[in-house]
Amino acid sequence: MPVNPDHSPEVVDLARRTAKFVREVVIPAEEEHGGVPATGGEVLRTRLQEAARGAGVFAPHVPSEYGGHGLDMRGRALVFEEAGYSLFGPLALNIAAPDEGNMHMLEAIATPEQKERYLRPLAEGRVRSCFAMTEPAPGAGSDPSALTTRAEKVPEGWRIDGRKWFITGADGAAYAICMARTSGEPGARGGATMFLVDADNPGMKIVRHIDTLDEAFFGGHCEVLFDNCVVPDEAVLGEVDKGFEYAQVRLGPARMTHCMRWLGIARRAQDIAVARAADRQLFGSRLAELGMVQQMIADNEIDVAASRGLILQACRELDQGRSGAQSTAIAKTFTAEAVWRVVDRSLQICGALGVSGDILLSRFLREVRPFRIYDGPSETHRWAIARRVVRRHLDGRTAGAQP
Amino acid sequence: MPVNPDHSPEVVDLARRTAKFVREVVIPAEEEHGGVPATGGEVLRTRLQEAARGAGVFAPHVPSEYGGHGLDMRGRALVFEEAGYSLFGPLALNIAAPDEGNMHMLEAIATPEQKERYLRPLAEGRVRSCFAMTEPAPGAGSDPSALTTRAEKVPEGWRIDGRKWFITGADGAAYAICMARTSGEPGARGGATMFLVDADNPGMKIVRHIDTLDEAFFGGHCEVLFDNCVVPDEAVLGEVDKGFEYAQVRLGPARMTHCMRWLGIARRAQDIAVARAADRQLFGSRLAELGMVQQMIADNEIDVAASRGLILQACRELDQGRSGAQSTAIAKTFTAEAVWRVVDRSLQICGALGVSGDILLSRFLREVRPFRIYDGPSETHRWAIARRVVRRHLDGRTAGAQP
Amino acid sequence: MPVNPDHSPEVVDLARRTAKFVREVVIPAEEEHGGVPATGGEVLRTRLQEAARGAGVFAPHVPSEYGGHGLDMRGRALVFEEAGYSLFGPLALNIAAPDEGNMHMLEAIATPEQKERYLRPLAEGRVRSCFAMTEPAPGAGSDPSALTTRAEKVPEGWRIDGRKWFITGADGAAYAICMARTSGEPGARGGATMFLVDADNPGMKIVRHIDTLDEAFFGGHCEVLFDNCVVPDEAVLGEVDKGFEYAQVRLGPARMTHCMRWLGIARRAQDIAVARAADRQLFGSRLAELGMVQQMIADNEIDVAASRGLILQACRELDQGRSGAQSTAIAKTFTAEAVWRVVDRSLQICGALGVSGDILLSRFLREVRPFRIYDGPSETHRWAIARRVVRRHLDGRTAGAQP
Amino acid sequence: MPVNPDHSPEVVDLARRTAKFVREVVIPAEEEHGGVPATGGEVLRTRLQEAARGAGVFAPHVPSEYGGHGLDMRGRALVFEEAGYSLFGPLALNIAAPDEGNMHMLEAIATPEQKERYLRPLAEGRVRSCFAMTEPAPGAGSDPSALTTRAEKVPEGWRIDGRKWFITGADGAAYAICMARTSGEPGARGGATMFLVDADNPGMKIVRHIDTLDEAFFGGHCEVLFDNCVVPDEAVLGEVDKGFEYAQVRLGPARMTHCMRWLGIARRAQDIAVARAADRQLFGSRLAELGMVQQMIADNEIDVAASRGLILQACRELDQGRSGAQSTAIAKTFTAEAVWRVVDRSLQICGALGVSGDILLSRFLREVRPFRIYDGPSETHRWAIARRVVRRHLDGRTAGAQP
Repeated sequence: MPVNPDHSPEVVDLARRTAKFVREVVIPAEEEHGGVPATGGEVLRTRLQEAARGAGVFAPHVPSEYGGHGLDMRGRALVFEEAGYSLFGPLALNIAAPDEGNMHMLEAIATPEQKERYLRPLAEGRVRSCFAMTEPAPGAGSDPSALTTRAEKVPEGWRIDGRKWFITGADGAAYAICMARTSGEPGARGGATMFLVDADNPGMKIVRHIDTLDEAFFGGHCEVLFDNCVVPDEAVLGEVDKGFEYAQVRLGPARMTHCMRWLGIARRAQDIAVARAADRQLFGSRLAELGMVQQMIADNEIDVAASRGLILQACRELDQGRSGAQSTAIAKTFTAEAVWRVVDRSLQICGALGVSGDILLSRFLREVRPFRIYDGPSETHRWAIARRVVRRHLDGRTAGAQP
Repeated sequence: MPVNPDHSPEVVDLARRTAKFVREVVIPAEEEHGGVPATGGEVLRTRLQEAARGAGVFAPHVPSEYGGHGLDMRGRALVFEEAGYSLFGPLALNIAAPDEGNMHMLEAIATPEQKERYLRPLAEGRVRSCFAMTEPAPGAGSDPSALTTRAEKVPEGWRIDGRKWFITGADGAAYAICMARTSGEPGARGGATMFLVDADNPGMKIVRHIDTLDEAFFGGHCEVLFDNCVVPDEAVLGEVDKGFEYAQVRLGPARMTHCMRWLGIARRAQDIAVARAADRQLFGSRLAELGMVQQMIADNEIDVAASRGLILQACRELDQGRSGAQSTAIAKTFTAEAVWRVVDRSLQICGALGVSGDILLSRFLREVRPFRIYDGPSETHRWAIARRVVRRHLDGRTAGAQP
Repeated sequence: MPVNPDHSPEVVDLARRTAKFVREVVIPAEEEHGGVPATGGEVLRTRLQEAARGAGVFAPHVPSEYGGHGLDMRGRALVFEEAGYSLFGPLALNIAAPDEGNMHMLEAIATPEQKERYLRPLAEGRVRSCFAMTEPAPGAGSDPSALTTRAEKVPEGWRIDGRKWFITGADGAAYAICMARTSGEPGARGGATMFLVDADNPGMKIVRHIDTLDEAFFGGHCEVLFDNCVVPDEAVLGEVDKGFEYAQVRLGPARMTHCMRWLGIARRAQDIAVARAADRQLFGSRLAELGMVQQMIADNEIDVAASRGLILQACRELDQGRSGAQSTAIAKTFTAEAVWRVVDRSLQICGALGVSGDILLSRFLREVRPFRIYDGPSETHRWAIARRVVRRHLDGRTAGAQP
Repeated sequence: MPVNPDHSPEVVDLARRTAKFVREVVIPAEEEHGGVPATGGEVLRTRLQEAARGAGVFAPHVPSEYGGHGLDMRGRALVFEEAGYSLFGPLALNIAAPDEGNMHMLEAIATPEQKERYLRPLAEGRVRSCFAMTEPAPGAGSDPSALTTRAEKVPEGWRIDGRKWFITGADGAAYAICMARTSGEPGARGGATMFLVDADNPGMKIVRHIDTLDEAFFGGHCEVLFDNCVVPDEAVLGEVDKGFEYAQVRLGPARMTHCMRWLGIARRAQDIAVARAADRQLFGSRLAELGMVQQMIADNEIDVAASRGLILQACRELDQGRSGAQSTAIAKTFTAEAVWRVVDRSLQICGALGVSGDILLSRFLREVRPFRIYDGPSETHRWAIARRVVRRHLDGRTAGAQP
């Protein structure tokens, strides 16, 4: 019986099968690719996704009509964490960012025609996609309302102009979902619209791959130029001028699925460190029996458990149709920092071996560091959390009251 | 509808009524007693408990046959946190330590006769009790197996000899539950037995009130001498030589109820600080709009939410009859430190006012500091957590796997 | 030979004699007064100061013409730390706050007549004094320019009106140095003047002792009302409208001498904890051999050493006549937090004994906590530090360059 | 006039000229080599060293007879920090690890003949060297006494057999200084000897470059096999069986020079972040005016200042011929962690830009992380620090007493 009433036995079983699949199929693929999924290319992606389909764990988050298991957010929390135990796991299950978040949004907002054309092939792993929102300073970043990319109405539909960067997965994506300002000025919170832009549109160009500390994402983090990029009216996703609201539909859950996947990496790091500590002798003891190492192991365990609790709570709210703005911000801020601490401690436990490429910890360190910045830096989330707390007080409610 | 499927609407309602009761009845009593419940004596205790009974929130944790609401651990998590919002709240609801833990244990272990004699008056608030386990070094403390107090079989029953300290609530208690070694030597994990010792037993003497940083507990923290203390055979609680096992019955849940109550204080501290920050001007801004203050407010919110998630998870396991050894250790370690951080930050936000007796924060600081030591210092818990993780690894299971 | 070229052999010798005096004479006095100097009253103060005079360690900071050793700031760093090893030490040497800072300022600013009347008896320990600057919100606190107490020119001299709080040592002081606004409005940085107000002035009233977490200061922290308080023109200390500048003369060095004294307490806490850890057995080891305890001991040692280095650097700058604004802010912020951490860890090492009044650690915890707020909260100092760094950058200098 | 009496005006001037040289000559070279000195090869090394010679800042640490400025440790503290402001600076000045530490040791221990043959060309930048001590587990690492590489007396001299790893700079080094056990068994602290092994010795083979998180060191971190490696008697450095003592001669100062160089990087990181924060607008403010950013800037400044103070104190002791075991351990532990925090915060301030290769912060993050492990992990140092504190207590001296 599941410990948590949030989870059905079926979901728990799917999570177990996912864990098994990751250990038996996915992890063996890590070594040939130096621990970096992106180096495997489409061949690897196809192979792993076929294996996942065979194991019955593919695309667990999409509805059954698109070939998935239709997991709610709490179910994803359980399964995605297991998939995240390898950097290659989310790829195999087709739940990697940004595709997974795009599927979530398309399912919620797209028209039936758009779903057939964009969601179905994405859900089935036939294509990849990207989400083009972030802009270099002084554009949309921590502050989305700073959006400067513009779309103007033209006879053929809309013309988009602007520069985006850190567009994950852009290289090789079949299409982009692009946020552009259709009314208002940068700084105003209204007036954004989402557009579906096909990769072969001559107005969308990948300027460069940004060299980043992390390297695991398929298709890299790209700088993308929209230059006289004309799209038809059918390319509008949802309604005109509602882009910021739709972004919230994507961002809250996407924040959580990021957390779930990274939590898997934290557990993996802990497993690697514990195995090392249990094995290695130092000063006449097992490393695992030295107090300072025990402290690091215990703190890892605490950080993982606390992250999991926060993620689950936020998922409950999202599953009930609540906004989850506060609970996802809390869970994201804590988890991003906790995962970082866990990987850092695990690496420290392993000493010189930990900084070497002989084990995966320094790779993980590089991959998880940006998560304290991506999807909103911790400082921006803390600012938003505090503002909500103060507003709550001014509204006469007590701080910290239980939901 | 409750967000968490762990909670029935009835329990949520009880929690709401408890919150209301605390705000309307309990908090007004704080000021007359300088924020320290113990100064109010039996008069205060009786008055508050009658009010709680009137409000239908008294003794929520005991079965209905003893006048309570029969909450499981998850229900307690919700209600005790609300009661803990004032240092006087647990007293009013009759869920203060050590009585609450003793009721829990008596209900689980005592004979029907013992329940009538010891549990019923305790549950009804007619008497107080204490739990005499901790000993000064080198006796039972962080390491319970160091137990040195001995009980020898004598014709009249058992004769107990030994010295205990930090026996909370001993002064004024109607009886003590005393742990004594009935076989084995200090250092061996077996051979302890629990005894019910009436306060009028001439062999049990309160040597002194230990002057401690915290002062809120009724009956203080006492040093108690068992000197030729003879009790009849019926005074044995449960079976001879099973004391350490019974202690676990008490300690796991008691750790969690401590956490629940202290979490209430953390929320109170946050509320006090937020009210101040929203009101106070500094350098031309509201204090609540200064970034470093926002960071403290946000971190408080995160700490409270993470503690709550860990407590809830541990309670789920306890409610399912699992040992909860790991999850309660994790929740206790994190919560004790988180509550401390929250109170410390809240005090810092309030500046000089925070260290003054004009508001309750310096009182809270004194009360919560020992919680990082009581019920097992953080270091002991971390040591135990790490050992279980390593054992799990050696048994071939992966670290951090979800329960 | 001293390790540091900053210290002459004479100063090193004075520090050694101070250490010896504290151990042999001062510490034995602690126990009779429950560890709280203020409870000893004038009898204790007189007795200890006579003993210090006899040991040749009295008033090391004042010039020889006032009976002292004329130590520069670096010399004080060495000697005050030794005196601070007991909460009673600074009292014995007549270097406790606020008298020590007042002597420093009077020596720098007062007229010869004022020195005879106010500095000499203070330096000789015949009287105590106080410094009346801080006001309750929204007055002068973290932001001195918010000063609301006003002094108006009247025929007899000046009339002061306003409310002060946290005026340390006010009760029993022979006089106050009072900051009042003589021009400009609250919020303006100019226009303050310092006045010497005799305790028998009917216009100065001690309203109450503020109940505070710390209790060691002689004369408490008082709320003081200046109500139609008329003083003659000779009561002006220095020049009219230069009060804020003079306050800097006092505050920079006073910040450092606070740090020196508290650093002594940190060392004392560490000594108490190490003695306990070396003695106590747990789980079959000496406590001092358990890794998590070793970590706490090491971190204490690091914190003490780092604080000492920062204090010394700031003192060097002050001794050279530099402003020391940045270096004293850095040293104060770090030391206040480091001392707090050291005491907190030391208490943790001692477990239940640590929270008891049987040893001094919980007393120290109470005394040092406010130091993160007094003399400028850490947040205010960090804000000022960062602003200077950014200004330095804008001026074209590199951040962190060595002085 | 220098603020610190530890520094002569000449040394201060050399430091200033070094800073100027780094900004004008070294930093422009960074970009062409992607921020990683090692990619520049010998061409770059030669060019930069010639420029340094021309600027009169070359080899500041070696005696004038070898073409240097003969700086003592305190002088190095000043100059090396300036050189460390770029990853390329130490290379340019010929003070990079491991050469700099080898020069220090050769000067102290080598015979005149060995100095001519090994020290002079190294000091003049004509060759590079390496230090072959560390072994893969279970050999010499955190615990040097675990040394397993053996040297046996043979007719031609000595035969060395064993495996080393993390031998920095081995690839391209003209010779290695190799630690091998000449008596005793692994675990015994005695019985090591140092040998000078020429790179063309057929018994010394570079097995591989270890792929590591950091990449800046010339010649990489190599795994080196000594396999039937025969050296003549003149290859013995110092006396047989005194290798562990000599290692201390190298390790204490080498620890400090590491700290000095990394402190330069911390300052650079802070400068980069401050420049960005002063320039970037967010939410209508300059980033540098947001409180959480100010906190990070201030904490960086504090960490740099505290590290500098600890390094200087340790250098004073070393310059006086004291062992410095405790003070260098304290300084190394704190500085390694402080530098890491500074780089991490600086990167965070810069957001997405910070994780990109467009600026150097993610490069710095990779380079400084291993410093918490290299030259003794923080845990090993803390263990040693605590043991000395406890021994000091048992010897009757007080903890934390000033040196």
